[in-house]
Amino acid sequence: MNGLMMQQPLLISSLLTHAERHHGEQQIVSRRVEGDIHRYSFRDMAGRSRRMANALGTLGMKPGDRVATLAWNTHRHMELYYAVSGAGGVLHTLNPRLHPDQVVWIADHAEDQILFFDLTFLPVIEAIASRVKTIRTFVAMTSRAHMPASTKVPGLLCFEELCEQHAPEFAWPSFDENTASSLCYTSGTTGNPKGVLYSHRSTILHTMASAMPDALNVSTRDCILPVVPMFHVNAWGLPYSACMVGAKLVFPGPGLDGKSLHELFESEKVTVSAGVPTVWQGLLGYMDGNDLKFSTMRRTIIGGSACPPAMMRSFQERYGVQVLHAWGMTEMSPIGTVCTLKGMQAGLSADEKMAVQAKQGRAVFGVDMKIVGEDGAELPWDGKAAGELLVRGPWIISQYLKGEGGNPLVDGWFPTGDVANIDANGFMQITDRSKDVIKSGGEWIGSIDLENIAMAHPAVAMAACIAAPHPKWDERPLLVVMKKPNAEVTREDILAFYEGKIAKWWTPDDVVFVDAIPLGATGKMQKMKLREMFRDHKLPTA
Amino acid sequence: MNGLMMQQPLLISSLLTHAERHHGEQQIVSRRVEGDIHRYSFRDMAGRSRRMANALGTLGMKPGDRVATLAWNTHRHMELYYAVSGAGGVLHTLNPRLHPDQVVWIADHAEDQILFFDLTFLPVIEAIASRVKTIRTFVAMTSRAHMPASTKVPGLLCFEELCEQHAPEFAWPSFDENTASSLCYTSGTTGNPKGVLYSHRSTILHTMASAMPDALNVSTRDCILPVVPMFHVNAWGLPYSACMVGAKLVFPGPGLDGKSLHELFESEKVTVSAGVPTVWQGLLGYMDGNDLKFSTMRRTIIGGSACPPAMMRSFQERYGVQVLHAWGMTEMSPIGTVCTLKGMQAGLSADEKMAVQAKQGRAVFGVDMKIVGEDGAELPWDGKAAGELLVRGPWIISQYLKGEGGNPLVDGWFPTGDVANIDANGFMQITDRSKDVIKSGGEWIGSIDLENIAMAHPAVAMAACIAAPHPKWDERPLLVVMKKPNAEVTREDILAFYEGKIAKWWTPDDVVFVDAIPLGATGKMQKMKLREMFRDHKLPTA
Repeated sequence: MNGLMMQQPLLISSLLTHAERHHGEQQIVSRRVEGDIHRYSFRDMAGRSRRMANALGTLGMKPGDRVATLAWNTHRHMELYYAVSGAGGVLHTLNPRLHPDQVVWIADHAEDQILFFDLTFLPVIEAIASRVKTIRTFVAMTSRAHMPASTKVPGLLCFEELCEQHAPEFAWPSFDENTASSLCYTSGTTGNPKGVLYSHRSTILHTMASAMPDALNVSTRDCILPVVPMFHVNAWGLPYSACMVGAKLVFPGPGLDGKSLHELFESEKVTVSAGVPTVWQGLLGYMDGNDLKFSTMRRTIIGGSACPPAMMRSFQERYGVQVLHAWGMTEMSPIGTVCTLKGMQAGLSADEKMAVQAKQGRAVFGVDMKIVGEDGAELPWDGKAAGELLVRGPWIISQYLKGEGGNPLVDGWFPTGDVANIDANGFMQITDRSKDVIKSGGEWIGSIDLENIAMAHPAVAMAACIAAPHPKWDERPLLVVMKKPNAEVTREDILAFYEGKIAKWWTPDDVVFVDAIPLGATGKMQKMKLREMFRDHKLPTA
Repeated sequence: MNGLMMQQPLLISSLLTHAERHHGEQQIVSRRVEGDIHRYSFRDMAGRSRRMANALGTLGMKPGDRVATLAWNTHRHMELYYAVSGAGGVLHTLNPRLHPDQVVWIADHAEDQILFFDLTFLPVIEAIASRVKTIRTFVAMTSRAHMPASTKVPGLLCFEELCEQHAPEFAWPSFDENTASSLCYTSGTTGNPKGVLYSHRSTILHTMASAMPDALNVSTRDCILPVVPMFHVNAWGLPYSACMVGAKLVFPGPGLDGKSLHELFESEKVTVSAGVPTVWQGLLGYMDGNDLKFSTMRRTIIGGSACPPAMMRSFQERYGVQVLHAWGMTEMSPIGTVCTLKGMQAGLSADEKMAVQAKQGRAVFGVDMKIVGEDGAELPWDGKAAGELLVRGPWIISQYLKGEGGNPLVDGWFPTGDVANIDANGFMQITDRSKDVIKSGGEWIGSIDLENIAMAHPAVAMAACIAAPHPKWDERPLLVVMKKPNAEVTREDILAFYEGKIAKWWTPDDVVFVDAIPLGATGKMQKMKLREMFRDHKLPTA
């Protein structure tokens, strides 16, 4: 016997309709690629999204067609989020930090039909336009006045002209909520990139779960500046949750340097932000150097990589900004856990709270997780046993686009490739990527702990800990350090810094200094490259 | 093309699994019908729910079978919420405030198979046991020691014995999320009661939407005491949202008097509560009389009827408890709107904020609403135009059980029977029930405004405004007043109290005093009865 409630599919267009009807006056502010600040309302945004939906029809977009973007966080990108998915297409956010060869490979694999891009990326587009197999239409996301005078891109269209040429009346179609809505490729350190295909249902459920008080806790009284790119797992869903709750949105465009960001935080009275640790490093460095403060910022969500405790302390103790440590993956839409304290932890000391906050946190409702040993058996939640982390839930991948890589699931669970422990209160802590684990004499050493300690040293800007071959122990930890500008520190200083902070046998066997640690397209340290660089490094203990 | 996310049905059992796994240690405290305080954890509750699911199987419950309860808010009732729905049955919460004849009619109409009841209601059960057609099993929700020595109820079973006799191992089945989960009849002032049949999907979506920061804003750091009964629209969903977020739950059992409630609020450090205005009147009266305060209460959700502004002021100004005015219906699971201020209203004065809070608030995400005139055309959102309120969304009824009353929808919208205005910011305010509207010379007078003013008078305990026949104007307002104990006030005092507060022609034509205003089974004033009582009342203006 079925219930007798209304059958309404969960559709992304309903977010826009809700925002327009209930928060029509709320503002969206963008730093445009053209350099100026653009300001309008949800009502304006909804009208322009409908114009763009009509334009997509004119351009021949059919249901299920992939429409790609190569773009920053701006209001125009937001309009495409709703126009493409709302009208039944699939929004494919390409990562502009990838090599043009990879962009071509991914666009071909996804069979993209139309590509929208910010002017910043015109050189990339000119390099790939004749190489991509399926893209038949290129649109520059700018006005006529800023269009390139001449270009090698055939039949290049202008975003603002398309907008003007089409009417703002468009009835968002209704369809099955399991319909594909958007597509994002994983950066894939090994093998080809793989496409993660979200549905309208998974997106709406993820948006609801992520806005909850124990997750990102966003409300209509917030002003959200997503630093995390809209080409990186839909900016962790914030362009959707802002519509759901009617929060003010501030888009930084291409201005991700400390100065540009700090100016926007202050001028627009931002209350919440979100991004990976490497971006915050730039912002905090700029603020430290110029003795600046935040006036309205209350909290920031940090994920993508583990947030170094030193950065957390700086945010909370020096700037009064609460850090919400979060964890997720492209395959998870992305949010899996958020570190919000429980009521029973209210009485902990500041240091004890910080120790909890260093963990990636508790599963949001909808996500279930477990850790398993090498034999696949579930491990206890005791805060000590570390094993591979597996997850499941309605916004977690069941397979990759076109079945690439085969069935990724193990008994219905998605293996994350992360190694973690979970404590008795359900707080999960990533100790490593399973491929980065250092196996010393049959025991595992977690590289993240070792990196966090090094990054707490005042002279260290960034640190990566990798496995180096060792004749007796198979592998031993090697610390790769990038110093802060003009800082002086020796190998011996760093090694001494570990004393008393960690089991003695975990201490790195050696420290090497580099000018830069290579970062991937999503801002994560590329340890595979480091392992190649130091493949022949001879440990003094060897 | 469909997305490639995991297909997981939204099921009520997932709330319990989540609570046990991620908040196993969180507490549930109940004032038992036996008189003592019972205390256990979500982990214990989950285990007992599984035992009870096994027991239901032994008792012959098949998928879709209706299992009825006649019970207070207690941990045992909570266990049945999960055991019955989780195992595939339909939990039918009967309202013990109804006349036994109505209980029989409803149980027969629903074709209930099993009935669980609290000992308080043994006399009702003994009166109806031989009359109900389909119930074959009666279970008293108590332990063997408290079972009645002799009873007219045939084969009466004991809840705690059933629990002990069955194992705590039970795998919650997976099934279509549109499966019926629970059933609640509307009190129905005209015609027969009608059954509203919720689904697992509608319940989970309602739970997610209602927990959001702009709605009830509940988190794992809250301690929730639902005063609203679990037999009244699932206690506004709080037994579900507490599991979803891992909040501590406190159940008042049968102790709904001011003294019992206040003791629990204090001893259990309650932070959030929810109920109808009439219950709060008892609590506030007790606190006023004994000069008591709240130590931990931060906010209370008031719905069911409009919250009189005087009560709102008392909560906020005297007791420091924020009032969240909310509105919904049995047909809406129930939450439709919650009055949470927008960021743009942060700068309003206390009086201006109070004027906004007197409204029923903004639609939660998922609910769309509109107001229409007598011709069915949509009215503007200007805070003035009042018309019938219509709603739609995935937790709103599409039809009543067995199709009673025919198709209740108008072009896919559910007409609520409420008359409301909506302002430019989306804040909705109920001005009347459409059947209670007073039509004076072709113009509508909203009875709720007139009642709120009267209830702000220090001598008035409760006031109802009804239409009285008038030879010239068709109808004119007649105010029915119940005085506070020992208070003295005259007709002239009350009428003078309206001066300057409202348009002169809205002022009631007469005031009558009664010993008690009749309340319905859900605590609402029964104006139909008052209209009958004063059918022949001759207005002095007639």
